[in-house]
Amino acid sequence: MQPRIQVITLGVSDLDRSLAFYRALGLASPGVIGTEFRGDEDNPGGAAAMFELHGGLILALYGRTDLEKDANATFDAPGAGEFSIGHLVGTRDEVDAVLAEAEAAGATLTEEPHERPWGIYSGYFRDPDGHLWEVIWNPRLASAPA
Amino acid sequence: MQPRIQVITLGVSDLDRSLAFYRALGLASPGVIGTEFRGDEDNPGGAAAMFELHGGLILALYGRTDLEKDANATFDAPGAGEFSIGHLVGTRDEVDAVLAEAEAAGATLTEEPHERPWGIYSGYFRDPDGHLWEVIWNPRLASAPA
Repeated sequence: MQPRIQVITLGVSDLDRSLAFYRALGLASPGVIGTEFRGDEDNPGGAAAMFELHGGLILALYGRTDLEKDANATFDAPGAGEFSIGHLVGTRDEVDAVLAEAEAAGATLTEEPHERPWGIYSGYFRDPDGHLWEVIWNPRLASAPA
Repeated sequence: MQPRIQVITLGVSDLDRSLAFYRALGLASPGVIGTEFRGDEDNPGGAAAMFELHGGLILALYGRTDLEKDANATFDAPGAGEFSIGHLVGTRDEVDAVLAEAEAAGATLTEEPHERPWGIYSGYFRDPDGHLWEVIWNPRLASAPA
């Protein structure tokens, strides 16, 4: 396996709501695609929304029941996928600003930003489906991320 | 918020086991770092393992209870973070090969590879903690990913 990840897919309960949330955060998307693939009780539909990020990474939103069907996986099982997505910013103030922006867009702050013993300043929010994002400033990085 | 994700952090129940798993898949890591930050009942420890991926993306492994403490979040709540990570390969045979490699490394295949109505060929596996990876071949991509 090559060391690359090109797509992060979030299972969401309401595609339109999540699309609006991430657009409100400033991400650009052409909108919901794939609605012509309807799916049924056994087969997943194709409706999804994609955001192209820096470096070509794709953040995809996909109905959680569709993702469950597509992967043949259930999300109420133990260890069903705990994770967080890291978002680095260039200054300490930017951490506060992005968290405030997220909260204004409907996110829940789970952890107020503070310094960690290992030298970063960060805080966390949950998106509408509970997906965790950590907004991070690392003063030891030589320059702000591009 | 800028359209970028630099870090994907997987909450894992056994750091050494997960490090061995991803190394077995061919990812390179200097090993577990941050063990000098011990943590306690209320504060997360700093032990983690990092893999630098193409484009500078970091895949991080971090104890799930540490991640829960660090984010002040619990993972048994509804909607605690369903997701999958997409890994694109250059040929159909490579999908089968990577899934076989994953299974040999201890992954569970949740979905055998097959064609989707929207034109891709893919299958899914779960890593030891249940994190979902989708291995994808998209014949409409002009060239194999670098």
